[in-house]
Amino acid sequence: MKFNRVWKNLARSSGKKIVYVIMDGLGGVGGPDRGETELQVAHTPNLDHLAKQSSCGLLETVGPGITPGSGPGHLALFGYDPFKWTIGRGILSALGIDFPLQKGDIATRINFASTDTQGNVIDRRAGRIDDKTNHRLCNKILNHINLKINGEIYLKTVSQHRAVLILRGKNLGGDVTDTDPQRTNVPPLDPKAKDESSQKTADLIIDFIAQVEEVLSGEEKANTILFRGFDKYNPIPTLYDRFGLSGLCVAEYPMYRGLSRLLGIDLTKPPAGLKAAFEQFRLSYLDAEDKDFFFYHIKDTDSSGEDGDFSRKVEILEKIDRLMPLILDVHPDVLVVTADHSTPSTMGRHSWHPVPVLIHSEFSRVDDPNAFNELSCLHGSLGIRPGLHLMGLALAHAGRLKKYGA
Amino acid sequence: MKFNRVWKNLARSSGKKIVYVIMDGLGGVGGPDRGETELQVAHTPNLDHLAKQSSCGLLETVGPGITPGSGPGHLALFGYDPFKWTIGRGILSALGIDFPLQKGDIATRINFASTDTQGNVIDRRAGRIDDKTNHRLCNKILNHINLKINGEIYLKTVSQHRAVLILRGKNLGGDVTDTDPQRTNVPPLDPKAKDESSQKTADLIIDFIAQVEEVLSGEEKANTILFRGFDKYNPIPTLYDRFGLSGLCVAEYPMYRGLSRLLGIDLTKPPAGLKAAFEQFRLSYLDAEDKDFFFYHIKDTDSSGEDGDFSRKVEILEKIDRLMPLILDVHPDVLVVTADHSTPSTMGRHSWHPVPVLIHSEFSRVDDPNAFNELSCLHGSLGIRPGLHLMGLALAHAGRLKKYGA
Repeated sequence: MKFNRVWKNLARSSGKKIVYVIMDGLGGVGGPDRGETELQVAHTPNLDHLAKQSSCGLLETVGPGITPGSGPGHLALFGYDPFKWTIGRGILSALGIDFPLQKGDIATRINFASTDTQGNVIDRRAGRIDDKTNHRLCNKILNHINLKINGEIYLKTVSQHRAVLILRGKNLGGDVTDTDPQRTNVPPLDPKAKDESSQKTADLIIDFIAQVEEVLSGEEKANTILFRGFDKYNPIPTLYDRFGLSGLCVAEYPMYRGLSRLLGIDLTKPPAGLKAAFEQFRLSYLDAEDKDFFFYHIKDTDSSGEDGDFSRKVEILEKIDRLMPLILDVHPDVLVVTADHSTPSTMGRHSWHPVPVLIHSEFSRVDDPNAFNELSCLHGSLGIRPGLHLMGLALAHAGRLKKYGA
Repeated sequence: MKFNRVWKNLARSSGKKIVYVIMDGLGGVGGPDRGETELQVAHTPNLDHLAKQSSCGLLETVGPGITPGSGPGHLALFGYDPFKWTIGRGILSALGIDFPLQKGDIATRINFASTDTQGNVIDRRAGRIDDKTNHRLCNKILNHINLKINGEIYLKTVSQHRAVLILRGKNLGGDVTDTDPQRTNVPPLDPKAKDESSQKTADLIIDFIAQVEEVLSGEEKANTILFRGFDKYNPIPTLYDRFGLSGLCVAEYPMYRGLSRLLGIDLTKPPAGLKAAFEQFRLSYLDAEDKDFFFYHIKDTDSSGEDGDFSRKVEILEKIDRLMPLILDVHPDVLVVTADHSTPSTMGRHSWHPVPVLIHSEFSRVDDPNAFNELSCLHGSLGIRPGLHLMGLALAHAGRLKKYGA
């Protein structure tokens, strides 16, 4: 049974507001050799006090043993089955740079790369060229190529060697395989199409590559391009369509902004710095009377985990904790604090370990945990459950789900 | 995976008996502002002692965030997926008043209601007319109307303004929308059919309404009727069909008796009062040597929760606890104590919060909890799990499931 379909049928308005505070990559891994987790070490009296007054638990955001990318991790928290709603890298990249995708657009990630005289890839990132060079190359390509497309073509810089290509034409398919061989000293792969309309796309790409290599022939490093993550953009049901929620996102990073746009969530860009971002969130919450779902995304927890910087992650958690009163003071009807996945600094990358979660509301069944961390939350009343359960619980706590059956 | 299909294939007789003691609406919500739950406050030495010798846990009876109606809640406990087996209100109402439904019957709930001279609904309950008036109106209608149905029509009083209409004809469909607008100062809705056979039903209903309004035109309050919960009766597999269980239900309320009849469970009506009901249950258990599944339903826990009466719910729990020896003394092979949903008296209505459960048998893996309540059961060996798991566990503890595979 797909619970999100049931929630959709039961959803109603209640005037109550839900706040998601998502600390990206929050969870850590402790143990005999590594000691405690970042959250256990950090002094977080506000979060601990909140945990004492909330329902606590752990979320296995995507599935057992599955290390979520940020896309699937967030989709699950928002009540979208991450195995049903697979969104290609090209689409997320385009949305992430605020490109206004239209239904039917084909988007794909591009790497500028270097090949040798035999055509073998010798650097998949063309020496990590800078953004300015990337931008110059994109313009150069667009000015010189002439593609037989009955429509538009967009080539946009993302950062360093990364760009995104969007093809807007009639009946183009998105089922095209990567040309990036994912290793060096071999030639790029040919793009293979899985159906007729995708063959049209693949033919355009083959022509595109040939022309690009001519245009880039004089370049020192970036003399070719590699493709991955072809996908066709199909708008998906919004949070409003599904659960009647009008959302507002406060997030700095393109990826999360892109995901929010995909789900019909309005965007506010916070200023740099945690304190300013918390203050911005508070103001946005107080201002947006017509909104009932607020998604506040904090990236720093993940970045420090990815960098393997245990003590910086601890410091960031302590800083977040000191700022929490800015959110607590506005008394959201339902306040959820959790993460899209773990990023233990002891591993330096995303991991599959469940993340702590708390739900604070008038109707939370308060339980034993008196600290907000991976171990204490194990004893909470939410248990360990899939990330996909969260939206239903948040809606219930906000009185936004009708009773099921007589 | 549908576990209930697996259980069906593995089910065998063992001569062992299963007892379900279902305290309707058992669970509560505690917390810093609300203090402890009713179960935590209540002095329940017998239940606590039983918990000490049982496997404990919590059931999320229907699903995450989903507040179960009594129908879906019980279906899940009996091993019927509540999303697959959806039973219309009309069917439950008819079964609830012991009406002998036949396959293909169309049943729908009726409210006697009041409209003004413009035909707008001004009271959806006709001033809550009494049972006697209801009965008189049903007879008056049946005596005067003449419906073009090639079959039978039954109109039965339920209570106050509530009645149930049963149409028994050839090829009538049950997919007809409600006419009850669920609010006042608007006219009743037209019944809409979703397929051809249901259109036949809708046409009968439109004619029925017109004739009824003529018959009722002289009535002070009840001058029309509103319909909701149309459904066609299709017998569902019984507990015996599925799990080889011959059941006996001891329940006072029509709804639970109706559900039991639907599942092929025989019925015993207890006398009024908790003590007499417990004694009746005990006698029924000792008498019914051919039965192997006993469903004892206690309504008072739910009623006091619905009334928001915390101390009455506590008193009822204490009373139940004092009566538990009447059941414990007969030493059921498997004794399950749980609920169909929570009805926290702090909320005054059904809620989505998981309910405590204990399974006592020779083969229960005994665990830490030494009290039977929402928090202690969190630490039990059953964990937090869907209500649908319960029947399989009960069957297993009764030795009624064969090994799966070699």
